[in-house]
This record gives sequence, structure tokens and C-alpha cells, in this order.
Amino acid sequence: MSFFEDLRARIDAVDSVVSVGLDPDPERLPGFVDSELPRWSFNRRIIDATHEHAACYKPNAAFYEDPDGWRALEETVAYADGKGVPVVLDAKRGDIGNTARQYAKALDTVDAVTVNPYMGRDTLEPFLSRSEKGIFVLCRTSNPGGSDFQNLQVGNDKRLYEYVAQRCAEWNDHDNLGLVVGATAPEELERLRELVGLPFLVPGVGSQGGDAEAAVEFGLADGVGLVNSSRGIIFAGEGTIDENAYFGAVGDAAKRLKTRLNEYR
Amino acid sequence: MSFFEDLRARIDAVDSVVSVGLDPDPERLPGFVDSELPRWSFNRRIIDATHEHAACYKPNAAFYEDPDGWRALEETVAYADGKGVPVVLDAKRGDIGNTARQYAKALDTVDAVTVNPYMGRDTLEPFLSRSEKGIFVLCRTSNPGGSDFQNLQVGNDKRLYEYVAQRCAEWNDHDNLGLVVGATAPEELERLRELVGLPFLVPGVGSQGGDAEAAVEFGLADGVGLVNSSRGIIFAGEGTIDENAYFGAVGDAAKRLKTRLNEYR
Repeated sequence: MSFFEDLRARIDAVDSVVSVGLDPDPERLPGFVDSELPRWSFNRRIIDATHEHAACYKPNAAFYEDPDGWRALEETVAYADGKGVPVVLDAKRGDIGNTARQYAKALDTVDAVTVNPYMGRDTLEPFLSRSEKGIFVLCRTSNPGGSDFQNLQVGNDKRLYEYVAQRCAEWNDHDNLGLVVGATAPEELERLRELVGLPFLVPGVGSQGGDAEAAVEFGLADGVGLVNSSRGIIFAGEGTIDENAYFGAVGDAAKRLKTRLNEYR
Repeated sequence: MSFFEDLRARIDAVDSVVSVGLDPDPERLPGFVDSELPRWSFNRRIIDATHEHAACYKPNAAFYEDPDGWRALEETVAYADGKGVPVVLDAKRGDIGNTARQYAKALDTVDAVTVNPYMGRDTLEPFLSRSEKGIFVLCRTSNPGGSDFQNLQVGNDKRLYEYVAQRCAEWNDHDNLGLVVGATAPEELERLRELVGLPFLVPGVGSQGGDAEAAVEFGLADGVGLVNSSRGIIFAGEGTIDENAYFGAVGDAAKRLKTRLNEYR
């Protein structure tokens, strides 16, 4: 099965397009997680609390870049896999041939990755050629500086992010390419949906305040796509009185987002 | 001292602008490296063989992204530091605020990093604000696909890579920003040197066959800049008869590149 076929099956099984971002910021981890590999201890409880509502998990590589971090990530990926939930490694990589091939090995354990398009097609190829895996290419990002370069006019009638989307659609020989498109610019989501039929991974609906309706209406391609929340779910337990309350609140936050998004599906 | 002041002192001390890329591809490591942390064992010998000719070391993060890899990287950085050689972590990162801050912590142990500009200014800010560290922003890369997006016409008279360079020059509040500009497009190196006064890190002179003269003539800003070779130096010992011959050839390759570049300084 290809990644997007797997993802469609998962979306159907849990009736959810929620991507749960696993970004275990050490400074925000609750006091009761085990001190041995705290990120893994935390993620395990997050997965227990949310997997019934999760179409995928999306760990951001930035939070795992040290020796213990990579161990925590490996455990997390294996545990999500055991629960039958696909994992998208949010690594935003992109590098020349021999190096990209090295990065592409990260795909051995996960189901999909995010990649950065700035360096061009050959830097995406080692990912794209693995037809059973998914690749989400950064297109229009949800951060304030997302417009600095992505919204530049290129040629007569296109923005850079639109051009990136169109080139990516041309490069999608194995039907395994999607785009990262932020929910903070709904009109751009709409414009991209008119341009290409690729599935979108839409961040920015939680803490960043993006538009949930637009994320669902324009993010899904024939019903397949992902809407991500990271901090809005995993830290939803902050301020609760104990461990059970903490992860109860986390599970509720995932369920609430699922329900909210399903209104528009 | 700032990074570029440190780098100038190092360039003067060893009379070299050579950056030695530490990309220990597991499939190309010689048979005689220790099986315990082979990448560290290899890098240690590379540093011993080349440090007299090295203005900096540039480990590419792709080759260290696993638990043992991060340990090998930490040992490597500490060892280079002990030899007085600055380390540029070639990570090509770029992510939203809270995540970029996490990546920026990688700067604690190294002296500079490479970052990807696609997501815009706020994703570079956590790096730029660390005024004692160096940041090299990808501008015009040396790979075949480098022109796919970087050479797009934006506005009336500029390419995307030129626009990126100019914006970066505006954002350089702490005099700690440089650009990554490939040696495989000498006329673009020249054009960028006319546009901005920033130091360049120029890859592509070794295995990729770039132009050494252009790399030096246009890559240095007031004498400061770096010209990188990775595989052309660290695997120069392939085909030799024993360990001493292997690392002898590695040292010779670094010295040869230094001499070749110094003809044009």
C-alpha cells in the first residue's frame, strides 16, 4: 500500500483528519514524566490519550536532536506504529544528492517526511523515489515570515508558492507527494486547491489560530489530507491537578479538534 | 569575539580558507576504523590529518541523525574545538518560532550553522539573534536542481537568489550572517559579490567540480570566507594500502586545496 492509501484507510477507521504534533518541548513537560527519557515517557502517554482521534502523529525533528532525543523518537515511532497510526517526521529537510539519500534513510522507520523545496528537484528525488512513503513539500507556511519569499511574484501571474505547488504536481510520478500549506492564510489555501489536486498537510489550526473550516474545505484532496495541531493538543493539560487530569485534557483536546473539523468534512 | 572575527583569526593563523566537510558516509568508511562509534573514530583521524590546513570543519547533520551519530558529532565538535578550529554545523534548518529556537540550541556547542531561507525572516531570527555565532543562509546552491526555484525571475530585474541575498544583508543586524553560494555557477558568485558584502561559504569545489578561482575571488569579503570540500578531502585515501597511507593522502588533499586556493587570495 502507498502512504496516501494507508492514510485514507486510517482516516476512515478513526473518522478523523487530525494530525497530532509531537513537539515535547523540554521546558513544558509536566513534572510527573519519568526522568529516564522524559520525551518518550511523555509521548507514550500522549499517544495513549489521543490515538483514537489521530489520523497521524507528526513529531518535529527539532525536539529530538540529541542522543537521548533520537532514542525517544525511535521508541515513539515504534509505539505509534504498534497502535496502527502513521507517523510523519516533520524534518523539513533538503540537501544535495548523497546527503539527501542519507536523510532519506530516516524514512525507513517513519511513513512520511516533510521536505524543503528551496534546493530544487534533485534534493527531493531520494524521497520521491520511495514510492511507498509519503513526502510533504513546504509550500505556503503558516508563520509570519512565510510571505517574505513564498509570496514573491514570479513571472506574470504567479506567486512563488503557487509555482512550487505546480512544479511539485509535475514531479509527483509516484502519487506520494503532498504539500504543507498553513491554515493562517485561508485564501491562499483556496487558491492552491484550485491549482493542484495534491493532499495538503495543514498546520496552524491550534496555537497559531488558523481557520479550521478552510483547512478542511481546501486541505483535503478527495477526502485525504491532514490538519495538524501540536501545542494545542499535547499541552492541553497544563494547569490541571494531576497526571490523569492532564492526559484526560489532552485526549479531550484531540477529540474536540476532530469533532470541529468533522463539521466541515 | 564574534564568529567572523574568530574565523578571520583562524584564516590568518593557518593561512587557509579551506572548510573540511565531515560527511562520514557509513558506506565509504575504511575498514580499519574502530567499530565503536566509527564516525567519531574516522573524524578524529581526519582532524589529526587536516587541522593545520583547516579554517573550519563543516559536519553535515544528515550523517549524524541517529543515537550513535549524535554522540559521534558531539565528540567531533569537542575535538575540533580542542584543536582551535571553528565548527560550522551544516544543518540547513529553518522552522517556525518555538521550533527554530529549539534548533538554535544546537548552536551551544558549535560556532555557526547553515539555515534555509524559504520560510522567511522569523525562522532565521533565533539564529541571527545569537550575535556571537555565525549563520550561513542558503542562497544559490551548487546542485543541479539549484536553479529550479532559486533562479526564478522575481520582480523586473532580479533572480530569487539575488533577492534572498539582499534581504539577508538587510537582516544582518549583528554582522553574523553569511551566504552559501555554490562554486558551480561562477558568474552567479560574481553577481552576488557585486550585490552584497557578506562572507560566503562556497561548496562544490571538490567532487562537484566547481571553479576554485571564482570561489576565492568572489567568495571572500575583505578576506573572510570559506571554500568547502568534503568527499574530495576525507575520502582522498581510498585505494591506499594502509591506515597511515590513507590519512596521509587525506592530509595531502587538504594541503593541496589550501595551496590551490591561496594562489588566488
